[in-house]
Amino acid sequence: MARNVLLLIADDLGRMLGCYGEKAVTTPHIDALAAAGTRFDMAFTSTASCSASRSVIYTGLHTHENGQYGLHHDNHHFMTFDHVETAPALFNRLGHLTGIIGKIHVGPPSVYPWSVREESATRNIGWVARRAETFFQRAKREDRPFFLTIGFVDPHRDMTRGGFGNEEELDPDVERRQYAPEKVTVPPFLPDIEEVRRELSAYYSSVHRLDQGVGRVLAALRAAGLADDTLVCFLSDNGAPFLNSKTTLYDAGVHLPLIMRVPGRQGGVANPNLVSFADVLPTFLDWAGWQGGEGARRGRSVLPILEETALLPDWQIVFGSHTFHEITNYWPTRFLRTPRYKYHRNVAWKLDFPFSGDLYGSLSWEGMRNRSPVMIGQRSLENYIHRPAEELYDLKADPDEVHNLADDPDHMERLSDLRTRMERWQRETGDAWLFRDGVSVRAVSHHLQQGLLLPDRFDFDVTQPGGGDPKRSTSAPVGGLKD
Amino acid sequence: MARNVLLLIADDLGRMLGCYGEKAVTTPHIDALAAAGTRFDMAFTSTASCSASRSVIYTGLHTHENGQYGLHHDNHHFMTFDHVETAPALFNRLGHLTGIIGKIHVGPPSVYPWSVREESATRNIGWVARRAETFFQRAKREDRPFFLTIGFVDPHRDMTRGGFGNEEELDPDVERRQYAPEKVTVPPFLPDIEEVRRELSAYYSSVHRLDQGVGRVLAALRAAGLADDTLVCFLSDNGAPFLNSKTTLYDAGVHLPLIMRVPGRQGGVANPNLVSFADVLPTFLDWAGWQGGEGARRGRSVLPILEETALLPDWQIVFGSHTFHEITNYWPTRFLRTPRYKYHRNVAWKLDFPFSGDLYGSLSWEGMRNRSPVMIGQRSLENYIHRPAEELYDLKADPDEVHNLADDPDHMERLSDLRTRMERWQRETGDAWLFRDGVSVRAVSHHLQQGLLLPDRFDFDVTQPGGGDPKRSTSAPVGGLKD
Repeated sequence: MARNVLLLIADDLGRMLGCYGEKAVTTPHIDALAAAGTRFDMAFTSTASCSASRSVIYTGLHTHENGQYGLHHDNHHFMTFDHVETAPALFNRLGHLTGIIGKIHVGPPSVYPWSVREESATRNIGWVARRAETFFQRAKREDRPFFLTIGFVDPHRDMTRGGFGNEEELDPDVERRQYAPEKVTVPPFLPDIEEVRRELSAYYSSVHRLDQGVGRVLAALRAAGLADDTLVCFLSDNGAPFLNSKTTLYDAGVHLPLIMRVPGRQGGVANPNLVSFADVLPTFLDWAGWQGGEGARRGRSVLPILEETALLPDWQIVFGSHTFHEITNYWPTRFLRTPRYKYHRNVAWKLDFPFSGDLYGSLSWEGMRNRSPVMIGQRSLENYIHRPAEELYDLKADPDEVHNLADDPDHMERLSDLRTRMERWQRETGDAWLFRDGVSVRAVSHHLQQGLLLPDRFDFDVTQPGGGDPKRSTSAPVGGLKD
Repeated sequence: MARNVLLLIADDLGRMLGCYGEKAVTTPHIDALAAAGTRFDMAFTSTASCSASRSVIYTGLHTHENGQYGLHHDNHHFMTFDHVETAPALFNRLGHLTGIIGKIHVGPPSVYPWSVREESATRNIGWVARRAETFFQRAKREDRPFFLTIGFVDPHRDMTRGGFGNEEELDPDVERRQYAPEKVTVPPFLPDIEEVRRELSAYYSSVHRLDQGVGRVLAALRAAGLADDTLVCFLSDNGAPFLNSKTTLYDAGVHLPLIMRVPGRQGGVANPNLVSFADVLPTFLDWAGWQGGEGARRGRSVLPILEETALLPDWQIVFGSHTFHEITNYWPTRFLRTPRYKYHRNVAWKLDFPFSGDLYGSLSWEGMRNRSPVMIGQRSLENYIHRPAEELYDLKADPDEVHNLADDPDHMERLSDLRTRMERWQRETGDAWLFRDGVSVRAVSHHLQQGLLLPDRFDFDVTQPGGGDPKRSTSAPVGGLKD
């Protein structure tokens, strides 16, 4: 049996899908895929930004490890490190025919050497499905296994202030479904105002088009007779393109759809284990029979737990790392998620939380900012813009992450425990944004070896520049730091 | 006559040279070069960071135009845009033999296609001079004009906390000059404390080695009989590696040595005109007879004013642009300098001013931070770490840039005028860090065309989220912005 992989990536899609409980938008094809495979209910990307999140999917590494710190295109210009092993490079070595159709948004091309590279910004899923069909035929003709990625452009915003590409030219048989603003579901991370409803209705049309695209590509796979040899994975890069979601590490930004249909495995599974998008590539390699070792990848295959419906002890924590969206959006932050709690470490907390261009220009934000009081869903504007160095949330009591427990005396022990786990992970992953006294521990690691003492505090303190009690000026443990 | 160029770049050298009035360090070879050519007394780099400053020299563009926003190596990973025309690419097209010996520190290599690429971190100037000699012989043998860059490693810090590479192995005939700490000149941007004097004495030894290197390379040029066909340019990438200098846009960081000796032109000139390192490449192209037009380059040739000893009306303003040093050192800031005034626009002023790893680990900073009060030269620690959105200095009255006049009612008109000039320049150069209301004007330029109004303020204000009086919510003029 060939061990093919078909990876379907939606652009800026939250969990607004029928199979994830959303009734107001119709997504029959994605729902059918979930019904035939495993729906991961606790899947998390590492960062809610397009290029960065995709790089995690393609490398099994967090962005502070792979160098794709932010957007790739135009003046943002972030690049994956040359030495990183990516999905197309690894599958080329496996002998697969590798290809990508649609949105790419990572680079440089030499690090992502897809053999077939059909970059396009079209939302015409008719074209997408035809290119996929041609690709499948070529793989069959050459009698080669394949790894194909489809980068759908939906449901990303278009370049207008409130649009989602719904006016774009499409094949005539693509359905243009319209949703009434009064019938959409306003998610809890957004306020129920007219502008939001209007944008959500346009967003739904875009999601519905995406769903048709998924259906067409899967139909082409079946028609080519390849469905039984192909692992199909559907996911999104980051949450919906609204404030409080995309570009944030709140759940609306990082808690995402992830569906896998693996030939020979059970269907209709709702898997509650916490999986990370860093696990995606290791899973594909596992499926494809990769024998080249674990490599530098951070993630691990989910195939052993694919059919689990119980929460396993070893799958109860995921981490995430965001540093940039646009080049002007520096806001390094890290999260740790357990089934119940979420810990955020905001390195540049003194900076206002930045707006990306698409969200700043949106009509929904214009609607929010001109109301009184300004609320971003359940979150006050003040809390959205000005964030503390640490945030701790009890997602069971507070699913919208608005009641910060970091200063709550009852949660001091938990805070300390999660902070310790976070920093251990930062050290293990060579995170340059592990800070002490306002500096990157990694940037001074050679000085630490020569006796430099780092005051044990996140930020520099001008009122106590010497660092206070020298006995407290202990070096952070840096054993795990990479050079 | 061949039109050769020899570019000599010192690493982290301020104006501590005999020819710039510094008596305590001995630099006879650089002084002799100045005596035979033009010493620019008001030369400014655009940014006080190695890779970034070099990219300005090699492209004639500021870093927000060329993409080399910060350090190139290791996890910093900033890269010049692929479409940018660089010195080696242009001189290859001119038919010159292009080469670089020593420090490179910009990338990617495809954008900087030196034909001869001898990257090295050695401070053994004997080796450097021998490689230069070999290069000169090759150019002669091939009867080709050349463009050679020497990237000296001195007087950069080494990897120890207070060292400057003075223990490195060298050819036996390289002089190891020692300077007594009590005899160095403590520049006004540093406090006169023991640790600073100790580091300065080691720094002087490194500067003296650099000077010998310059002497040896120039001797090799003469010996090859090429001196009369070669424009020689000596400069540094950024100011001395101490707080208040390197990584800052204060004069100690950006006001640098620049010496040019052009065959057939007068010697011993002290030129008071304000020139920018963006002018270096256009000057080289002018000298070499480039006919390909001005290109996208920002700078202009200084050859027409080479022998000027009076300040000309058209050479009284320079601009600079700094965004990163290390990837963890985001601190976008811009400056404008006239003969008398300096204006700083600090975009991320809410962030503490960051420490680079080498400066944080230095013994001089350890000495400063443990004294009371902590002074960084004439500047208070508070003013060093916490900077306002705008700074305005009268360099005539206040050469150390410590008395900020931005809030001074007597200087409101000047502030407004300089701010306007700065923003015009930002628009002309497509600067993504021209901010309004906390967002990049460039990032929302497509929304502005569709009616988005940007409140006329630098930062977002949570207390007035709607932007206040809508009549004041005027879009910034964005006509000059590039896509």
